Amino acid sequence: MKIKAEIIGGSGYIGGELLRHLLFHPNVEIIGVTSIKHIGQKISTIHPNLFGVTDMVFESDDVKKIKNCDIVFFALPHGLAMEKVKQIDLSRIKVIDMSADFRLRDVSIFESTYKIKNTAGSLLNQFVYGLPEINRDQVVNARLVASPGCFPTGAVLALYPLIQSGLSTGSVIIDSKTGSSGSGNTPSETTHHSERDHDFKAYNIFNHRHQPEIVQTLSEYGKLDIEVIFTPHSAPMVRGIFTTAYAFLEKESTTGALEALYKKFYKESLFIRFVEQSRSSVVMGTNYCDIAIHVQGKKVIVTTAIDNLVKGGAGQAVQSMNLMFGLKETKGLEFPGLHP
Amino acid sequence: MKIKAEIIGGSGYIGGELLRHLLFHPNVEIIGVTSIKHIGQKISTIHPNLFGVTDMVFESDDVKKIKNCDIVFFALPHGLAMEKVKQIDLSRIKVIDMSADFRLRDVSIFESTYKIKNTAGSLLNQFVYGLPEINRDQVVNARLVASPGCFPTGAVLALYPLIQSGLSTGSVIIDSKTGSSGSGNTPSETTHHSERDHDFKAYNIFNHRHQPEIVQTLSEYGKLDIEVIFTPHSAPMVRGIFTTAYAFLEKESTTGALEALYKKFYKESLFIRFVEQSRSSVVMGTNYCDIAIHVQGKKVIVTTAIDNLVKGGAGQAVQSMNLMFGLKETKGLEFPGLHP
Amino acid sequence: MKIKAEIIGGSGYIGGELLRHLLFHPNVEIIGVTSIKHIGQKISTIHPNLFGVTDMVFESDDVKKIKNCDIVFFALPHGLAMEKVKQIDLSRIKVIDMSADFRLRDVSIFESTYKIKNTAGSLLNQFVYGLPEINRDQVVNARLVASPGCFPTGAVLALYPLIQSGLSTGSVIIDSKTGSSGSGNTPSETTHHSERDHDFKAYNIFNHRHQPEIVQTLSEYGKLDIEVIFTPHSAPMVRGIFTTAYAFLEKESTTGALEALYKKFYKESLFIRFVEQSRSSVVMGTNYCDIAIHVQGKKVIVTTAIDNLVKGGAGQAVQSMNLMFGLKETKGLEFPGLHP
Amino acid sequence: MKIKAEIIGGSGYIGGELLRHLLFHPNVEIIGVTSIKHIGQKISTIHPNLFGVTDMVFESDDVKKIKNCDIVFFALPHGLAMEKVKQIDLSRIKVIDMSADFRLRDVSIFESTYKIKNTAGSLLNQFVYGLPEINRDQVVNARLVASPGCFPTGAVLALYPLIQSGLSTGSVIIDSKTGSSGSGNTPSETTHHSERDHDFKAYNIFNHRHQPEIVQTLSEYGKLDIEVIFTPHSAPMVRGIFTTAYAFLEKESTTGALEALYKKFYKESLFIRFVEQSRSSVVMGTNYCDIAIHVQGKKVIVTTAIDNLVKGGAGQAVQSMNLMFGLKETKGLEFPGLHP
Repeated sequence: MKIKAEIIGGSGYIGGELLRHLLFHPNVEIIGVTSIKHIGQKISTIHPNLFGVTDMVFESDDVKKIKNCDIVFFALPHGLAMEKVKQIDLSRIKVIDMSADFRLRDVSIFESTYKIKNTAGSLLNQFVYGLPEINRDQVVNARLVASPGCFPTGAVLALYPLIQSGLSTGSVIIDSKTGSSGSGNTPSETTHHSERDHDFKAYNIFNHRHQPEIVQTLSEYGKLDIEVIFTPHSAPMVRGIFTTAYAFLEKESTTGALEALYKKFYKESLFIRFVEQSRSSVVMGTNYCDIAIHVQGKKVIVTTAIDNLVKGGAGQAVQSMNLMFGLKETKGLEFPGLHP
Repeated sequence: MKIKAEIIGGSGYIGGELLRHLLFHPNVEIIGVTSIKHIGQKISTIHPNLFGVTDMVFESDDVKKIKNCDIVFFALPHGLAMEKVKQIDLSRIKVIDMSADFRLRDVSIFESTYKIKNTAGSLLNQFVYGLPEINRDQVVNARLVASPGCFPTGAVLALYPLIQSGLSTGSVIIDSKTGSSGSGNTPSETTHHSERDHDFKAYNIFNHRHQPEIVQTLSEYGKLDIEVIFTPHSAPMVRGIFTTAYAFLEKESTTGALEALYKKFYKESLFIRFVEQSRSSVVMGTNYCDIAIHVQGKKVIVTTAIDNLVKGGAGQAVQSMNLMFGLKETKGLEFPGLHP
Repeated sequence: MKIKAEIIGGSGYIGGELLRHLLFHPNVEIIGVTSIKHIGQKISTIHPNLFGVTDMVFESDDVKKIKNCDIVFFALPHGLAMEKVKQIDLSRIKVIDMSADFRLRDVSIFESTYKIKNTAGSLLNQFVYGLPEINRDQVVNARLVASPGCFPTGAVLALYPLIQSGLSTGSVIIDSKTGSSGSGNTPSETTHHSERDHDFKAYNIFNHRHQPEIVQTLSEYGKLDIEVIFTPHSAPMVRGIFTTAYAFLEKESTTGALEALYKKFYKESLFIRFVEQSRSSVVMGTNYCDIAIHVQGKKVIVTTAIDNLVKGGAGQAVQSMNLMFGLKETKGLEFPGLHP
Repeated sequence: MKIKAEIIGGSGYIGGELLRHLLFHPNVEIIGVTSIKHIGQKISTIHPNLFGVTDMVFESDDVKKIKNCDIVFFALPHGLAMEKVKQIDLSRIKVIDMSADFRLRDVSIFESTYKIKNTAGSLLNQFVYGLPEINRDQVVNARLVASPGCFPTGAVLALYPLIQSGLSTGSVIIDSKTGSSGSGNTPSETTHHSERDHDFKAYNIFNHRHQPEIVQTLSEYGKLDIEVIFTPHSAPMVRGIFTTAYAFLEKESTTGALEALYKKFYKESLFIRFVEQSRSSVVMGTNYCDIAIHVQGKKVIVTTAIDNLVKGGAGQAVQSMNLMFGLKETKGLEFPGLHP
């Protein structure tokens, strides 16, 4: 079986990672890749790692092409997919959107967060949040998937089993550190090499757009009454999100006990690795999430390391696709990372 | 006036930074610099930035030389200064120790933390903790100073005014990120370039040696009953400690109100800069601590950025020296950092 | 068909990359992996990227195991393979050595270069230099292969077609820049993160051990009378060798003409990519060598970018193995690199 | 004495470094700093390292202010200073221009290189090239100085004594490696952190704008008949230019002999340090040029390390100013670099 896939918006870093994975996926045939700015250009001029791997060129949107697809991936800036998806025959064609358009259930929160009018209408509730580790069954049965943001992936995977268990107070602090690729491939002052290299800083304190997504996911699928402080930081590296999550137990426990809880919860999740020390470089290029758990009395610290463009982006979307089409969840995603 | 200074243990990174500052200090004459491993070698072979600046060579310890000093700086590994200091005529000669030997008041905590027998005896209580921003008067009158650790400097400067005000609950979470120079100049696996570059990780969770120092300083000088979670991280950079400190107010407040509190507290502290965004690269090479304050209801996030080898090491020691000798606190420390 | 492979010395960076490739090679079964220092330890404790990928442990050398192999890879420090290889039944088992032991034809040059007694004896001449792009036929028929050094790979691929053509003067200057992983995983002063990060330097000028290998390969397989200046540099990155090679034509020519020459020469070499600009990051994790050619009158500049651990190490060895066993040369080596 | 200085165009990286040096120069008073884009903004919002150091704001150009100056520094994009300088009373006010406007003697070469009409007219010949190490006397007597480009500084200091001696063939190859700050503070694709970090590449091969400046300076002041190949590279670091210069002697010589020649030539040049190994990180933030010389028979390799923004930019301009005003050449430039 070959799944026919179309990529709408393939010139960003997430689009590039989607291409890297789908080009080597044994069950996928890429029908087309669109771009707004690079129509007619070879994909490999924008994604030089794919030079010699594919001769495809970026195309403009073409409804006919999409008609022949089994799945459409959207890797567009926020606010565009919610309109474009309406042109697709959703009775036959599956969709995975990697923007924020269909992630937040509450339209008013979406609009105040992203400063974009939400025109998704009734489609919004048809989208399933695509984080298989916490809602695999829903993803398996989904036709439309909203793939999670990068920070929420690292944060939710660190905290979900604990929140869901009811053992914690519900107050959590999430201190996240990201590489520069999370800002995409458009140059800006904060990603200017001379400014970013050997610099560490926090940004959007109390005010980052991924905060509502984290709250929603931990609340909706876990314990209802939670309080989240989320602080993103810029680290001087390209790839990776390292998350340090602080939580508090109602009763004292141990590292061993909590590890057992997490291992049970994630027992079917092949991309979760329990490690003594999470390291961002070790998961680079992979779909793994490396989790380390530490308990001292009532205090819990869980760290996760993911590649923001893979498990926090394109890899996670491929993982959802695998499930939606009845494939093994790890298909096309098995390759290990690099070390060093 | 020229203060005659001897440096015991000048071949490490902290020793090098002490030399960089003292060689250009208008009121200091360096009498000698000792080393265990590099006796007879030119200082500039170990600290290449000082090539052409000084022709001094590393010497062995020499009691006679020290007799002619006004001040002795110890930049030795933990556990050595507590013995060596006994050979000095402390009635005439001042001492600043940059190891942990005289920082912790409680001998049993010191010994369980550093796995070293504490032989300081009655000397211990004669040492003043050298963090002028919180105890300037004590430093001014001190003859013996225990200069703070790098993480405690960043953490305490972030939280002390708040803890001291009594407005917070006393529970704090300190999430710190350091560059590799904090590990010194002895090669090891964790500072091997191929392992450290583009990697981010936490280490010594619930278990770092600077934790008791932070607790003691916030407790002794501030509110007595506090609870501290401290998590150090390795960031892929050479210099700098970025600290994200989380605290909680008893009553809701605002960023403006807390900033006013901090500005009042630090009004005489010329190395404290209040900024919108702390950035580790901006303080590189300087004695500044850049503080940014954020309040949302009862939640407080204070970030600080320091250079671990300067404000978190040698610069802070020079600052204490200035005060101990009646000089302007900023003498020899005014030079700005580099940007970019 | 499954080729049974043994790895002797699998705990270094080259050993790790060999494991990464062979574990996913569709035609290879790894029989065992040895180590001197890590016997009994899980491979994934040393190569954390392989955690969850393999449960193998490092073993001590075991002659029986090797008896059942089809091929033995040596990834040992220089000087060890030349003895160990004698214990192997070379009539049945193929060998690829990744050290320098069998690279240099002239024993005296080897001994003065590596300061090691060469005890290979008659075996030396049975080894084929494993750079398929220039001697594919020999590798196809080889039973014993000496896999090239990292710098020589980048340098020879840049210059060989030109030298072989006879169009150049034979005088070349090779200015190479390497990442820190080329120094292996043993910490040292030159690979200490604080020293290596944001530093650029040249080393072993006129005196690097790869110089004779470059001279031999360009001479033996190409034009006899050549003069080589080779200057290695340390760049502040982990992976990659970027080579800038300068040569001089007897008669004026053009970029187009020389490109045509190179394309013809490398027409069967699927890992050679002709690009407008070689970039070290683009080939990271891959077996590609990205070549860019520039001609101005009689002056030629050819740049190459390779991953020192893959095309300059383990990947190249796998490429030779593929040829030695009649497999497609690219088997197990097709995966693209990461971008960014 | 206080020299009254005006900075025209102070918001770039070179402008920032000029401010860093002049604010601490004991003989300089900064009268004003202009900017086109940032009029009215505090200088420290653009140069955060100067926060707390100066409260000055960027101003628009003001002819009256300039009237009261002793010297005007131009740190504008190429092509602007040649017009603006005409508004200044050059009989009373000295000028140092840090753009390329007055560097090239040949108008046609300037225009074909920079694609800008050269309107300097008779002013052009009145400007002295400000590289004191090779033409100190001219700079001492200059009223108008064209401060050198960053690459030419590193290249010319590496080769000038040799070229001038007449001992070499006159053919040189200059392989230079620069940090990202050389591209200024305007974000672009080539300085986007995700693209630049861990990447090494060559650019503008046979075609860089600094080539004619290098040729002119080596020819005009040294041997007339020289041939230069100059290849710039982007290294993954912020500051520093490392230059590897290859030259060839007419007769065999030794490292010692050539070192003696260079030491004699540079005997009054306090910013030249002769080292065993040039390292870019060691000169960071300083005006030093660290030179290492290697000879093998007729082959010569000279390496230099400079900070592109200091010795290759603002520091060099301050050095010229010192000479033009009869001050000690090193005034305000003595501070050592950082290590690590």
